[in-house]
Amino acid sequence: MAELGNGKKQASPEEVHPRKAFGWAAKDKSGVLSPFAFSRRNTGADDVTIKILYCGICHSDLHTAKNEWSNAIYPMVPGHEIVGVVTEVGQNVQNFKVGEKVGVGCIVNSCLSCQNCNRDYENYCPRIILTYNSLDVDGTMTYGGYSNMVVVNQHFVIRFPENLPLDKGAPLLCAGITVYSPLKEHGLDVPGKHLGVVGLGGLGHVAVKFGKAFGMKVTVISTSLKKEKEAIERLGADAFLVSSNAEQMQAAMGTMDGIINTVSADHSIAPLAFLLKTHGKMIMVGAPEKPLQLPIFSLILGGKTLAGSCIGGIKATQEMIDFAAKNNITADIELIPISYLNEAMERLTKADVRYRFVIDIGNSLTEA
Amino acid sequence: MAELGNGKKQASPEEVHPRKAFGWAAKDKSGVLSPFAFSRRNTGADDVTIKILYCGICHSDLHTAKNEWSNAIYPMVPGHEIVGVVTEVGQNVQNFKVGEKVGVGCIVNSCLSCQNCNRDYENYCPRIILTYNSLDVDGTMTYGGYSNMVVVNQHFVIRFPENLPLDKGAPLLCAGITVYSPLKEHGLDVPGKHLGVVGLGGLGHVAVKFGKAFGMKVTVISTSLKKEKEAIERLGADAFLVSSNAEQMQAAMGTMDGIINTVSADHSIAPLAFLLKTHGKMIMVGAPEKPLQLPIFSLILGGKTLAGSCIGGIKATQEMIDFAAKNNITADIELIPISYLNEAMERLTKADVRYRFVIDIGNSLTEA
Repeated sequence: MAELGNGKKQASPEEVHPRKAFGWAAKDKSGVLSPFAFSRRNTGADDVTIKILYCGICHSDLHTAKNEWSNAIYPMVPGHEIVGVVTEVGQNVQNFKVGEKVGVGCIVNSCLSCQNCNRDYENYCPRIILTYNSLDVDGTMTYGGYSNMVVVNQHFVIRFPENLPLDKGAPLLCAGITVYSPLKEHGLDVPGKHLGVVGLGGLGHVAVKFGKAFGMKVTVISTSLKKEKEAIERLGADAFLVSSNAEQMQAAMGTMDGIINTVSADHSIAPLAFLLKTHGKMIMVGAPEKPLQLPIFSLILGGKTLAGSCIGGIKATQEMIDFAAKNNITADIELIPISYLNEAMERLTKADVRYRFVIDIGNSLTEA
Repeated sequence: MAELGNGKKQASPEEVHPRKAFGWAAKDKSGVLSPFAFSRRNTGADDVTIKILYCGICHSDLHTAKNEWSNAIYPMVPGHEIVGVVTEVGQNVQNFKVGEKVGVGCIVNSCLSCQNCNRDYENYCPRIILTYNSLDVDGTMTYGGYSNMVVVNQHFVIRFPENLPLDKGAPLLCAGITVYSPLKEHGLDVPGKHLGVVGLGGLGHVAVKFGKAFGMKVTVISTSLKKEKEAIERLGADAFLVSSNAEQMQAAMGTMDGIINTVSADHSIAPLAFLLKTHGKMIMVGAPEKPLQLPIFSLILGGKTLAGSCIGGIKATQEMIDFAAKNNITADIELIPISYLNEAMERLTKADVRYRFVIDIGNSLTEA
């Protein structure tokens, strides 16, 4: 056993995990990924074992693989937008059957007994176990979806309705729930209300689709004009604002009930707050590294709210997937073979993807 | 007529106001106040004319008199925590009678027809007219409560219940409503919930009293120990935290449902956000001049909210005054004659008052 910084013991997978698995892992902070043989636990009484078919690439995979959040433990198999097919279930599992299509998002375990878990907010459980780069209850590190299979406690498995495409549906498990959950929580799912979406990337483009499916007026706010046509014609946004265009911003002042802000780069908050109506709410789901500069008058005048939100709970995730299936909401993706993984990561650094890479695990991942 | 910067005409009071009045005014940005003769309008059909007995001194009076918010128009008669007795009512006024005790807070007019006014949020009306230093509908500047009498549209007059002391009740008209309104709006008025109060000044000490009257657990958070005894023994707080004491702050992490932050000085927000439970809310009613430095992770982890709030509407103000009367809530004041005004302002600069100066207008203001 190796000792981790926090004093907990990390068991070597081979000590406790009899089942062979393989995937691609980052081995150091270069973040370069390469084939990696490891192991998974046997299917426990409450477990669902899943053959992975697709896995989305989230921007946080890149941050974590490169240790940009200073929490990386290598080797690391990223990936928390996992979809596949059930291959085995434990004896206590009633709700999933072999052959069914399922998904796994950012969370693979939590205490299921704290105040947050009891309110269906496993995402805020202090004992949350993330899908990768997290210390699991058995002392091993969790490995994510850039791999051939995964074993997950049934509570954290999401059912995929038959009509939801698995590849385009995969990113909903992180990008989708991250925007859906706060929109619902903050009452920004009401027909006729006006929603602003700041940033048109993996999260933003899905937020536009959910906003339209809720019956809202949706305005995309971006730093440049170049995404205007696409936002309106392809994604169905009603309007487009360039944040540097003072005249446009002035004309839109006080018109929005809510804003979902998906931008992780350093940016000014006050001009966005001025777009809100009285009592309007701006939800932050992007996480700029540097502290925001927030002139407090921008919230006090108009009784406005700035709220943070981090993914969403399991019940909300299932609700979101069902809603997406019913309303034909999927992510716009570029499907790639796993051999393209490092190139995709490079392009992701430059935001050169519309809007999510998804790895075609089923058709391209072979044992090294 | 003098032309204002915004192109509107300012009528000289004498042109439109036949009724002589007197008070104390700041004449320039030194903020020094001295006797000042001016005039008020006659009692209009919807007006209530009030003989002023007491007026609280709000910190914003000091900021405005010294032009620290760059919006001062001189001569300026400050004061928006006004109580007195009705001396005359207009023909349309049914709800107020001569001899009744009434109050006037920060607002003396608004459009009464916009979305905000229709929802009883006159405080967010774009055409709000403040009690002083504001351009009134008739083209004159409004003059506040450091004066002998005032004429106010009946909609903006607050009834004072018989048992509420006029002098100690005066500060509730600004300090009281500023904390009461957001506590109610954000569901922070629930017995058993835990409220943090940051800063123990004019606003903070009243917030402690309202929190206790709501049946909450109240913890005061202050920069130094010196107010601990007073917060607990005199104001009834349940606990006291020194914000610089890392051990105390650590022990209180994740324990508060809400925080009302009354501090106007530059200060760190993240350590306060960590005191909140999941989905906890911090309400900002102080207005630091410099932008806040807000590490966004402090809101995202735990789905927390930072909300601004500015005074409150008229309906809420009446509700607050009635609640205060029922629960014997008043401000702790130092009653002063108007001759002491400039010395009081000096002491206010140094926060040397527990917790609000109130001018004894009725017994000390005489025509110069």
